[in-house]
Amino acid sequence: MERIDSKHNQQIKQLKKLATPKGRKHQQRYLLESWHLVQEALSALPAAEIEMIYATDDQYLEHGSKLSDLPVTLISDAVAQELGETTTPQGIFLVCKLQAPVVEPDYHGAWLLLDQVQDPGNIGTMVRTADAAGFAGVVFGNGTASPYNGKVLRAMQGSQFHLQVVEADLKAVLDWFHTKHQPIYGTELNPEAVNYREVQPQRDFALIMGNEGNGMNPVLLHQTTKNLYIPITGHAESLNVAIAAAVIMFRIKAD
Amino acid sequence: MERIDSKHNQQIKQLKKLATPKGRKHQQRYLLESWHLVQEALSALPAAEIEMIYATDDQYLEHGSKLSDLPVTLISDAVAQELGETTTPQGIFLVCKLQAPVVEPDYHGAWLLLDQVQDPGNIGTMVRTADAAGFAGVVFGNGTASPYNGKVLRAMQGSQFHLQVVEADLKAVLDWFHTKHQPIYGTELNPEAVNYREVQPQRDFALIMGNEGNGMNPVLLHQTTKNLYIPITGHAESLNVAIAAAVIMFRIKAD
Repeated sequence: MERIDSKHNQQIKQLKKLATPKGRKHQQRYLLESWHLVQEALSALPAAEIEMIYATDDQYLEHGSKLSDLPVTLISDAVAQELGETTTPQGIFLVCKLQAPVVEPDYHGAWLLLDQVQDPGNIGTMVRTADAAGFAGVVFGNGTASPYNGKVLRAMQGSQFHLQVVEADLKAVLDWFHTKHQPIYGTELNPEAVNYREVQPQRDFALIMGNEGNGMNPVLLHQTTKNLYIPITGHAESLNVAIAAAVIMFRIKAD
Repeated sequence: MERIDSKHNQQIKQLKKLATPKGRKHQQRYLLESWHLVQEALSALPAAEIEMIYATDDQYLEHGSKLSDLPVTLISDAVAQELGETTTPQGIFLVCKLQAPVVEPDYHGAWLLLDQVQDPGNIGTMVRTADAAGFAGVVFGNGTASPYNGKVLRAMQGSQFHLQVVEADLKAVLDWFHTKHQPIYGTELNPEAVNYREVQPQRDFALIMGNEGNGMNPVLLHQTTKNLYIPITGHAESLNVAIAAAVIMFRIKAD
């Protein structure tokens, strides 16, 4: 088993570059951190997609028995600290291939569409919530943080392995929904917006969440079937975007 | 108008201590950061509770006209950087008195009770969501992060000025609900737990959210009227605590 003790090792330097969109695009792979996410990847991915597991001695002693037949490289605590994006990394990482883009997407079921959503924590939480609510998938539109961003990955808690995660131009996605006559719900506060409680629970639809500050892209807004709002009965000015998405998803998605 | 240019100034050193529970308790005051929160405080608090506003030249030029009759101290950008808890502080702060403990609390209306919830971002988001959902207040039980913690304050977005925020022993709070025969809903997954959708929307109740990892304190659990669960139809293992709280609050709170 290979062992890397120096954070100046070339392999480690390459892995560090996976923290950026450019590095991931160039190397066509990404890095997952923590035993929870490594486990999720192991149970979801075909072995061919897993390139390498990096573990400190402690982590290998604890989990090595569940890693048989998989390529493992041991790393020092200093290397783990260098690779980790949290202040106290657990010391276990997995590198796997970027998902290939879907050629002919099929958006049956309930889909969450993210339109220029910025905050990685909110994005990851929305994917995790969509998973829990039984959504078929989440589309990351242009201008939305990447699903392979470290903070997004941590907040998703492995949900990217349970539902479909697609990066796509939302205009094309909405065209698909129009062609299939499936409703598209926006979340832009405007005079025609409808109380979300008036929408009957249903199985096939798209729900678009817009940018935290600026709301939805007007071009997309124009294509919505209805815009939904959550009545605020207190004095808060607004809801956090992940909270609003959760309240609507759990209300309008039929089991 | 006084002006402080050095971060070694005694007054600034005292203000820095407000970042800790000990410092706030000792000085009986706390620090709010950003123009949004300063505005919320100005519109909510009696002038006597506001001790001082600290603003950089830029912030004072922008907002000074709305600060008439209030005590203002100008600070340098370096001092703002020292006081701020974010990487790029706006440069405006307000110091106000800690809220006096309520002697005879009245828990009519809907209340959110936090039992050893740890994450400040989750806590603040729950207060903001409870405000939006029209809750009367939030009780911070023992072991829950302080409502005056900087991250909690930022995530609350000023909602502490719109609803009641109480720090109390939850056992005593539950006694109040029992005496008044008002329902107490827990959120502990156990065999008797009830689907949250089966609870009719109502006006007066307590909803308890437990610790992110360990759930609810068994002593409190024993006092609940019903435990609620959110059915997970996908493959996510669980929901984020602030998401779960939001889904239940918006469902069971009558307008």
